[in-house]
Amino acid sequence: MAGLTKEMKEAFGKMKIFPVATATKDGTPNVVPIGVVELVSDDTIWITDNFMNKSLENLKSNPKIALYVWGPEIKGCFQVKGHATVKTSGRDFDEMKATLNKKNPALPARSLIIVKITDVFECQPGPNAGNKIL
Amino acid sequence: MAGLTKEMKEAFGKMKIFPVATATKDGTPNVVPIGVVELVSDDTIWITDNFMNKSLENLKSNPKIALYVWGPEIKGCFQVKGHATVKTSGRDFDEMKATLNKKNPALPARSLIIVKITDVFECQPGPNAGNKIL
Repeated sequence: MAGLTKEMKEAFGKMKIFPVATATKDGTPNVVPIGVVELVSDDTIWITDNFMNKSLENLKSNPKIALYVWGPEIKGCFQVKGHATVKTSGRDFDEMKATLNKKNPALPARSLIIVKITDVFECQPGPNAGNKIL
Repeated sequence: MAGLTKEMKEAFGKMKIFPVATATKDGTPNVVPIGVVELVSDDTIWITDNFMNKSLENLKSNPKIALYVWGPEIKGCFQVKGHATVKTSGRDFDEMKATLNKKNPALPARSLIIVKITDVFECQPGPNAGNKIL
């Protein structure tokens, strides 16, 4: 597991929509914008599945996931890779659903994707792009 | 192959940075923001590799690629999947390099990724998310 630095956590908190990538077991990538993505500790991200389709299917057979933190308001760029577990019941799922539906009762909050961060890579364009940071 | 509609092409042209996903052959996804991405015909995208690392390695062994078109200035959201060929010489490569270096001589323009679009999927949040459009 890899824990994000203070600067990374601040940048993470500024993101509104995350590009989230998954893949089939035989390597067909999928990438979609996802809004309900929350860093719940230094090394754990909770993603709410409201309308996932291929992403969810992919994660059920292949738990590898990637996303990046970058945008007009973010200094630098880093890509997070992790290992995802899909929950549709239990304490964490109930907590996510209650919190989300308090803000927006219309969202289905069908499942909770718990991501343990395994690696962090530089993604700012330049000679260091792709380097492993954590 | 799938050819984008007029509306999709207009949206594509408004994007400044694209989230581009690739994967290893055994399904580890990678996603990074890439700037030099151009729709050269209804079904063909040219991506310039300036600083690719894992993306390029992935594409050499597994040509599957995905990206989406969405942002504050874009109406709707669509994900494009395609098949990539990496070129480091030839007429298309020379044309890409000459055009890019005319605008920005500092960019290395190391390779040209030619993507033939195979599928297009809806990625606007909601009940139709994930549906195949083309």
